Amino acid sequence: MYYPEPISKLIDSFTKLPGIGPKTAVRLAFFVLNMKEDDVMDFAKALVNAKRELTHCSVCGHITDQDPCSICQDTSRDASIICVVQDPKDVIAMEKMKEFHGKYHVLHGAISPMDGIGPEDINVPDLINRLKDEEVKELILATNPNIEGEATAMYISRLVKPSGVRTTRIAHGLPVGGDLEYADEVTLSKALEGRRDL
Amino acid sequence: MYYPEPISKLIDSFTKLPGIGPKTAVRLAFFVLNMKEDDVMDFAKALVNAKRELTHCSVCGHITDQDPCSICQDTSRDASIICVVQDPKDVIAMEKMKEFHGKYHVLHGAISPMDGIGPEDINVPDLINRLKDEEVKELILATNPNIEGEATAMYISRLVKPSGVRTTRIAHGLPVGGDLEYADEVTLSKALEGRRDL
Repeated sequence: MYYPEPISKLIDSFTKLPGIGPKTAVRLAFFVLNMKEDDVMDFAKALVNAKRELTHCSVCGHITDQDPCSICQDTSRDASIICVVQDPKDVIAMEKMKEFHGKYHVLHGAISPMDGIGPEDINVPDLINRLKDEEVKELILATNPNIEGEATAMYISRLVKPSGVRTTRIAHGLPVGGDLEYADEVTLSKALEGRRDL
Repeated sequence: MYYPEPISKLIDSFTKLPGIGPKTAVRLAFFVLNMKEDDVMDFAKALVNAKRELTHCSVCGHITDQDPCSICQDTSRDASIICVVQDPKDVIAMEKMKEFHGKYHVLHGAISPMDGIGPEDINVPDLINRLKDEEVKELILATNPNIEGEATAMYISRLVKPSGVRTTRIAHGLPVGGDLEYADEVTLSKALEGRRDL
Protein backbone atom coordinates (compact mmCIF):
# COMPACT_ATOMS: atom_id res chain seq x y z
CA MET A 1 0.00 0.00 0.00
CA TYR A 2 2.14 2.85 -1.28
CA TYR A 3 -0.76 5.20 -1.92
CA PRO A 4 -3.34 6.52 0.58
CA GLU A 5 -6.61 4.67 -0.05
CA PRO A 6 -8.64 7.49 -1.70
CA ILE A 7 -6.01 7.99 -4.36
CA SER A 8 -5.41 4.28 -4.99
CA LYS A 9 -9.16 3.87 -5.58
CA LEU A 10 -9.08 6.73 -8.09
CA ILE A 11 -6.05 5.15 -9.82
CA ASP A 12 -8.02 1.86 -10.04
CA SER A 13 -10.97 3.66 -11.63
CA PHE A 14 -8.76 5.33 -14.23
CA THR A 15 -7.02 2.02 -15.00
CA LYS A 16 -10.38 0.52 -16.00
CA LEU A 17 -10.68 2.98 -18.91
CA PRO A 18 -9.44 1.80 -22.31
CA GLY A 19 -5.92 2.81 -23.33
CA ILE A 20 -5.00 4.00 -19.83
CA GLY A 21 -2.21 1.97 -18.22
CA PRO A 22 -1.02 2.06 -14.59
CA LYS A 23 1.47 4.93 -15.13
CA THR A 24 -1.01 7.16 -16.95
CA ALA A 25 -3.62 6.37 -14.27
CA VAL A 26 -1.24 7.61 -11.55
CA ARG A 27 -0.50 10.77 -13.53
CA LEU A 28 -4.22 11.46 -14.06
CA ALA A 29 -5.06 10.78 -10.40
CA PHE A 30 -2.41 13.21 -9.19
CA PHE A 31 -3.61 15.74 -11.74
CA VAL A 32 -7.11 15.45 -10.26
CA LEU A 33 -5.68 16.20 -6.79
CA ASN A 34 -4.37 19.52 -8.11
CA MET A 35 -7.58 20.42 -9.97
CA LYS A 36 -10.01 22.99 -8.58
CA GLU A 37 -12.64 21.34 -6.35
CA ASP A 38 -15.46 22.70 -8.57
CA ASP A 39 -13.94 21.11 -11.67
CA VAL A 40 -13.64 17.76 -9.91
CA MET A 41 -17.29 17.97 -8.78
CA ASP A 42 -18.34 18.81 -12.35
CA PHE A 43 -16.37 15.80 -13.61
CA ALA A 44 -18.04 13.48 -11.08
CA LYS A 45 -21.49 14.88 -11.93
CA ALA A 46 -20.82 14.54 -15.68
CA LEU A 47 -19.97 10.86 -15.17
CA VAL A 48 -23.13 10.14 -13.20
CA ASN A 49 -25.39 12.20 -15.49
CA ALA A 50 -24.02 10.69 -18.69
CA LYS A 51 -24.73 7.23 -17.31
CA ARG A 52 -28.14 8.06 -15.79
CA GLU A 53 -29.71 10.55 -18.21
CA LEU A 54 -28.76 9.03 -21.54
CA THR A 55 -30.90 6.31 -23.05
CA HIS A 56 -31.36 4.87 -26.52
CA CYS A 57 -33.98 6.53 -28.72
CA SER A 58 -36.96 4.17 -28.98
CA VAL A 59 -37.27 4.93 -32.70
CA CYS A 60 -33.73 4.91 -34.12
CA GLY A 61 -31.60 3.59 -31.25
CA HIS A 62 -29.26 6.63 -31.15
CA ILE A 63 -28.12 7.79 -27.69
CA THR A 64 -30.23 10.67 -26.44
CA ASP A 65 -31.37 12.53 -23.33
CA GLN A 66 -34.93 12.83 -24.70
CA ASP A 67 -37.09 10.17 -26.33
CA PRO A 68 -37.52 10.22 -29.34
CA CYS A 69 -34.14 11.81 -30.06
CA SER A 70 -33.76 15.28 -31.58
CA ILE A 71 -33.04 13.82 -35.03
CA CYS A 72 -36.20 11.67 -34.99
CA GLN A 73 -38.23 14.66 -33.76
CA ASP A 74 -36.88 16.97 -36.47
CA THR A 75 -39.69 17.28 -39.04
CA SER A 76 -37.46 19.20 -41.46
CA ARG A 77 -35.45 16.03 -42.10
CA ASP A 78 -36.35 13.66 -44.92
CA ALA A 79 -38.03 10.65 -43.28
CA SER A 80 -38.03 8.70 -46.54
CA ILE A 81 -34.29 8.00 -46.35
CA ILE A 82 -32.87 5.96 -43.47
CA CYS A 83 -29.14 5.58 -42.99
CA VAL A 84 -28.31 2.34 -41.12
CA VAL A 85 -25.16 2.52 -38.96
CA GLN A 86 -23.56 0.21 -36.40
CA ASP A 87 -22.86 2.69 -33.61
CA PRO A 88 -24.06 6.01 -32.14
CA LYS A 89 -20.55 7.37 -32.87
CA ASP A 90 -21.25 6.73 -36.56
CA VAL A 91 -24.33 9.00 -36.35
CA ILE A 92 -22.09 11.74 -34.91
CA ALA A 93 -19.58 11.23 -37.77
CA MET A 94 -22.40 11.50 -40.34
CA GLU A 95 -23.86 14.59 -38.64
CA LYS A 96 -20.46 16.32 -38.59
CA MET A 97 -20.38 15.95 -42.39
CA LYS A 98 -23.60 18.10 -42.52
CA GLU A 99 -24.63 16.64 -45.90
CA PHE A 100 -27.09 13.95 -44.91
CA HIS A 101 -30.58 15.16 -44.08
CA GLY A 102 -32.43 11.88 -43.71
CA LYS A 103 -32.99 9.84 -40.56
CA TYR A 104 -30.87 7.14 -38.93
CA HIS A 105 -31.14 3.65 -37.57
CA VAL A 106 -28.47 2.46 -35.12
CA LEU A 107 -27.91 -1.31 -35.03
CA HIS A 108 -25.62 -1.33 -31.95
CA GLY A 109 -23.37 -3.96 -33.47
CA ALA A 110 -23.00 -6.11 -36.54
CA ILE A 111 -23.83 -9.70 -37.35
CA SER A 112 -20.87 -11.85 -36.32
CA PRO A 113 -21.47 -15.61 -36.25
CA MET A 114 -17.95 -16.10 -34.80
CA ASP A 115 -19.00 -14.15 -31.69
CA GLY A 116 -22.48 -15.64 -31.66
CA ILE A 117 -24.14 -12.36 -32.68
CA GLY A 118 -27.10 -12.95 -34.98
CA PRO A 119 -29.63 -10.55 -36.57
CA GLU A 120 -31.88 -10.74 -33.47
CA ASP A 121 -29.04 -9.58 -31.20
CA ILE A 122 -28.70 -6.28 -33.04
CA ASN A 123 -31.37 -3.70 -33.77
CA VAL A 124 -32.62 -5.37 -37.02
CA PRO A 125 -36.19 -6.34 -35.97
CA ASP A 126 -36.88 -2.67 -35.04
CA LEU A 127 -35.66 -1.63 -38.48
CA ILE A 128 -38.05 -4.03 -40.20
CA ASN A 129 -40.92 -2.64 -38.10
CA ARG A 130 -39.95 0.90 -39.08
CA LEU A 131 -40.05 -0.07 -42.77
CA LYS A 132 -43.62 -1.33 -42.25
CA ASP A 133 -44.83 1.72 -40.32
CA GLU A 134 -42.99 4.56 -42.05
CA GLU A 135 -42.93 5.49 -45.72
CA VAL A 136 -39.32 4.72 -46.52
CA LYS A 137 -37.97 4.99 -50.06
CA GLU A 138 -34.26 4.32 -49.53
CA LEU A 139 -32.18 2.47 -46.98
CA ILE A 140 -28.50 3.51 -47.02
CA LEU A 141 -26.43 0.73 -45.48
CA ALA A 142 -23.49 2.50 -43.83
CA THR A 143 -22.15 -0.34 -41.69
CA ASN A 144 -18.35 -0.58 -41.37
CA PRO A 145 -16.35 -1.78 -44.39
CA ASN A 146 -15.16 -5.00 -42.72
CA ILE A 147 -16.38 -8.61 -42.76
CA GLU A 148 -19.05 -8.15 -40.07
CA GLY A 149 -20.26 -4.85 -41.53
CA GLU A 150 -20.45 -6.29 -45.05
CA ALA A 151 -22.29 -9.38 -43.85
CA THR A 152 -24.78 -7.19 -41.96
CA ALA A 153 -25.36 -4.96 -45.00
CA MET A 154 -25.84 -8.00 -47.22
CA TYR A 155 -28.28 -9.60 -44.76
CA ILE A 156 -30.42 -6.47 -44.39
CA SER A 157 -30.36 -5.87 -48.13
CA ARG A 158 -31.75 -9.36 -48.85
CA LEU A 159 -34.31 -9.08 -46.08
CA VAL A 160 -35.63 -5.76 -47.35
CA LYS A 161 -35.52 -6.38 -51.10
CA PRO A 162 -39.00 -8.09 -51.35
CA SER A 163 -40.65 -4.98 -49.85
CA GLY A 164 -39.45 -2.90 -52.81
CA VAL A 165 -37.48 -0.38 -50.71
CA ARG A 166 -34.29 0.70 -52.50
CA THR A 167 -31.20 -0.40 -50.57
CA THR A 168 -27.80 1.18 -51.24
CA ARG A 169 -24.33 0.62 -49.80
CA ILE A 170 -21.83 3.42 -49.19
CA ALA A 171 -18.88 3.37 -51.61
CA HIS A 172 -15.58 1.63 -50.99
CA GLY A 173 -12.40 3.15 -52.39
CA LEU A 174 -9.36 5.21 -51.58
CA PRO A 175 -9.79 7.68 -48.72
CA VAL A 176 -9.39 11.34 -49.76
CA GLY A 177 -5.85 12.51 -49.05
CA GLY A 178 -4.66 8.90 -49.15
CA ASP A 179 -1.81 7.51 -51.19
CA LEU A 180 -2.24 4.90 -53.93
CA GLU A 181 1.17 3.46 -53.06
CA TYR A 182 0.13 2.62 -49.51
CA ALA A 183 -3.40 1.38 -50.22
CA ASP A 184 -4.00 -2.31 -49.47
CA GLU A 185 -4.90 -4.65 -52.33
CA VAL A 186 -8.55 -5.11 -51.32
CA THR A 187 -9.20 -1.37 -51.09
CA LEU A 188 -7.46 -0.79 -54.42
CA SER A 189 -9.45 -3.57 -56.08
CA LYS A 190 -12.70 -2.08 -54.66
CA ALA A 191 -11.65 1.37 -55.89
CA LEU A 192 -11.07 0.00 -59.40
CA GLU A 193 -14.31 -1.97 -59.35
CA GLY A 194 -16.27 1.12 -58.30
CA ARG A 195 -14.73 3.43 -60.93
CA ARG A 196 -17.06 6.03 -62.47
CA ASP A 197 -17.20 7.90 -65.78
CA LEU A 198 -15.88 11.44 -65.71
CA MET B 1 -24.31 20.34 -31.01
CA TYR B 2 -23.65 16.88 -32.34
CA TYR B 3 -23.71 15.20 -28.91
CA PRO B 4 -26.56 15.13 -26.38
CA GLU B 5 -25.63 17.50 -23.54
CA PRO B 6 -24.78 14.94 -20.82
CA ILE B 7 -22.19 13.27 -23.01
CA SER B 8 -20.70 16.49 -24.35
CA LYS B 9 -20.17 17.64 -20.73
CA LEU B 10 -18.39 14.36 -19.95
CA ILE B 11 -16.24 14.76 -23.06
CA ASP B 12 -15.32 18.28 -21.89
CA SER B 13 -14.31 16.92 -18.47
CA PHE B 14 -12.09 14.24 -20.00
CA THR B 15 -10.49 16.78 -22.34
CA LYS B 16 -9.29 18.78 -19.30
CA LEU B 17 -7.06 15.88 -18.21
CA PRO B 18 -3.43 15.92 -19.36
CA GLY B 19 -2.55 13.89 -22.46
CA ILE B 20 -6.20 13.35 -23.42
CA GLY B 21 -7.17 14.98 -26.71
CA PRO B 22 -10.67 15.41 -28.19
CA LYS B 23 -10.73 12.00 -29.93
CA THR B 24 -9.59 10.06 -26.84
CA ALA B 25 -12.11 12.01 -24.73
CA VAL B 26 -14.94 10.91 -27.03
CA ARG B 27 -13.75 7.30 -26.86
CA LEU B 28 -13.55 7.40 -23.04
CA ALA B 29 -16.98 9.05 -22.72
CA PHE B 30 -18.62 6.39 -24.89
CA PHE B 31 -16.81 3.72 -22.91
CA VAL B 32 -18.34 5.15 -19.71
CA LEU B 33 -21.82 4.88 -21.29
CA ASN B 34 -21.27 1.14 -21.67
CA MET B 35 -19.80 0.63 -18.19
CA LYS B 36 -21.84 -0.90 -15.39
CA GLU B 37 -23.71 1.77 -13.41
CA ASP B 38 -21.98 0.66 -10.17
CA ASP B 39 -18.54 1.12 -11.70
CA VAL B 40 -19.45 4.60 -12.90
CA MET B 41 -20.73 5.51 -9.42
CA ASP B 42 -17.50 4.19 -7.88
CA PHE B 43 -15.49 6.28 -10.34
CA ALA B 44 -17.46 9.44 -9.48
CA LYS B 45 -17.11 8.75 -5.75
CA ALA B 46 -13.39 8.07 -6.10
CA LEU B 47 -12.96 11.45 -7.80
CA VAL B 48 -14.83 13.33 -5.09
CA ASN B 49 -13.17 11.41 -2.23
CA ALA B 50 -9.66 11.81 -3.59
CA LYS B 51 -10.21 15.56 -3.78
CA ARG B 52 -12.01 15.93 -0.44
CA GLU B 53 -10.30 13.42 1.85
CA LEU B 54 -6.68 13.89 0.86
CA THR B 55 -4.66 16.66 2.44
CA HIS B 56 -0.99 17.38 2.87
CA CYS B 57 0.64 15.96 6.01
CA SER B 58 1.33 18.86 8.38
CA VAL B 59 4.76 17.40 9.19
CA CYS B 60 6.29 16.25 5.91
CA GLY B 61 3.89 17.60 3.27
CA HIS B 62 3.17 14.19 1.69
CA ILE B 63 -0.40 13.56 0.52
CA THR B 64 -2.38 11.63 3.09
CA ASP B 65 -5.87 10.82 4.33
CA GLN B 66 -4.77 11.10 7.99
CA ASP B 67 -2.64 13.80 9.63
CA PRO B 68 0.23 13.19 10.34
CA CYS B 69 0.70 10.71 7.49
CA SER B 70 1.36 7.00 8.06
CA ILE B 71 5.09 7.45 7.36
CA CYS B 72 5.46 10.27 9.93
CA GLN B 73 3.45 8.22 12.47
CA ASP B 74 5.59 5.09 11.93
CA THR B 75 7.90 4.95 14.97
CA SER B 76 9.89 2.06 13.47
CA ARG B 77 11.34 4.41 10.89
CA ASP B 78 14.59 6.27 11.48
CA ALA B 79 13.64 9.87 12.27
CA SER B 80 17.26 11.02 12.14
CA ILE B 81 17.39 10.81 8.34
CA ILE B 82 15.14 13.01 6.22
CA CYS B 83 14.91 12.55 2.46
CA VAL B 84 13.91 15.81 0.75
CA VAL B 85 11.91 15.36 -2.48
CA GLN B 86 10.02 17.70 -4.80
CA ASP B 87 6.77 15.82 -5.17
CA PRO B 88 4.50 13.29 -3.40
CA LYS B 89 5.03 10.99 -6.41
CA ASP B 90 8.75 10.95 -5.52
CA VAL B 91 7.89 9.60 -2.05
CA ILE B 92 5.95 6.77 -3.73
CA ALA B 93 8.93 6.03 -5.99
CA MET B 94 11.26 5.88 -2.96
CA GLU B 95 8.82 3.68 -1.00
CA LYS B 96 8.51 1.25 -3.91
CA MET B 97 12.29 0.75 -3.70
CA LYS B 98 11.77 -0.53 -0.11
CA GLU B 99 15.34 0.37 0.90
CA PHE B 100 14.91 3.74 2.58
CA HIS B 101 13.68 3.61 6.16
CA GLY B 102 14.00 7.26 7.16
CA LYS B 103 11.40 10.00 6.93
CA TYR B 104 10.53 12.38 4.10
CA HIS B 105 10.01 16.05 3.44
CA VAL B 106 8.04 17.05 0.34
CA LEU B 107 8.86 20.51 -1.06
CA HIS B 108 5.97 20.64 -3.59
CA GLY B 109 8.15 22.23 -6.22
CA ALA B 110 11.67 23.51 -6.76
CA ILE B 111 13.28 26.93 -6.71
CA SER B 112 12.89 28.46 -10.17
CA PRO B 113 13.69 32.20 -10.44
CA MET B 114 12.55 32.13 -14.10
CA ASP B 115 9.03 31.21 -12.96
CA GLY B 116 9.21 33.50 -9.91
CA ILE B 117 9.35 30.57 -7.47
CA GLY B 118 11.61 31.33 -4.50
CA PRO B 119 12.46 29.31 -1.35
CA GLU B 120 9.40 30.72 0.48
CA ASP B 121 7.04 29.46 -2.22
CA ILE B 122 8.06 25.84 -1.62
CA ASN B 123 8.06 23.90 1.64
CA VAL B 124 11.57 25.07 2.77
CA PRO B 125 10.61 27.09 5.91
CA ASP B 126 8.82 24.00 7.33
CA LEU B 127 11.96 21.96 6.69
CA ILE B 128 14.10 24.44 8.63
CA ASN B 129 11.61 24.28 11.55
CA ARG B 130 11.78 20.48 11.50
CA LEU B 131 15.58 20.62 11.74
CA LYS B 132 15.23 22.82 14.85
CA ASP B 133 12.59 20.64 16.55
CA GLU B 134 13.69 17.12 15.58
CA GLU B 135 17.03 15.42 16.09
CA VAL B 136 18.13 15.10 12.48
CA LYS B 137 21.57 13.75 11.58
CA GLU B 138 21.37 13.58 7.79
CA LEU B 139 19.41 15.38 5.10
CA ILE B 140 19.35 13.48 1.77
CA LEU B 141 18.60 15.95 -1.03
CA ALA B 142 16.71 13.90 -3.63
CA THR B 143 15.36 16.73 -5.77
CA ASN B 144 15.25 16.10 -9.52
CA PRO B 145 18.55 16.10 -11.45
CA ASN B 146 17.76 19.20 -13.51
CA ILE B 147 18.59 22.90 -13.15
CA GLU B 148 15.75 23.72 -10.72
CA GLY B 149 16.35 20.59 -8.65
CA GLU B 150 20.10 21.22 -8.45
CA ALA B 151 19.56 24.86 -7.49
CA THR B 152 17.12 23.81 -4.76
CA ALA B 153 19.51 21.17 -3.40
CA MET B 154 22.38 23.69 -3.40
CA TYR B 155 20.25 26.33 -1.66
CA ILE B 156 19.05 23.96 1.10
CA SER B 157 22.56 22.57 1.55
CA ARG B 158 24.02 26.06 2.16
CA LEU B 159 21.14 27.03 4.43
CA VAL B 160 21.54 23.92 6.60
CA LYS B 161 25.34 23.67 6.72
CA PRO B 162 25.84 26.07 9.71
CA SER B 163 23.56 23.86 11.87
CA GLY B 164 26.02 20.95 11.49
CA VAL B 165 23.47 18.56 9.93
CA ARG B 166 25.10 16.37 7.28
CA THR B 167 23.60 17.09 3.83
CA THR B 168 24.03 14.61 0.99
CA ARG B 169 22.92 14.61 -2.65
CA ILE B 170 21.76 11.47 -4.48
CA ALA B 171 24.27 10.27 -7.09
CA HIS B 172 24.26 11.25 -10.74
CA GLY B 173 25.41 8.75 -13.30
CA LEU B 174 24.28 6.24 -15.87
CA PRO B 175 20.91 4.62 -15.20
CA VAL B 176 21.10 0.86 -14.65
CA GLY B 177 20.33 -0.97 -17.88
CA GLY B 178 21.32 2.13 -19.85
CA ASP B 179 23.80 2.30 -22.70
CA LEU B 180 27.04 4.28 -22.57
CA GLU B 181 26.74 4.99 -26.29
CA TYR B 182 23.43 6.80 -25.87
CA ALA B 183 24.21 8.69 -22.64
CA ASP B 184 24.31 12.48 -22.99
CA GLU B 185 27.59 14.31 -22.32
CA VAL B 186 26.52 15.84 -19.01
CA THR B 187 25.41 12.50 -17.55
CA LEU B 188 28.57 10.82 -18.76
CA SER B 189 30.73 13.57 -17.29
CA LYS B 190 28.85 13.26 -13.95
CA ALA B 191 29.29 9.46 -14.04
CA LEU B 192 33.04 9.88 -14.55
CA GLU B 193 33.29 12.55 -11.85
CA GLY B 194 31.45 10.32 -9.37
CA ARG B 195 33.54 7.21 -10.05
CA ARG B 196 34.30 4.97 -7.06
CA ASP B 197 37.06 2.54 -6.15
CA LEU B 198 36.23 -1.11 -6.64
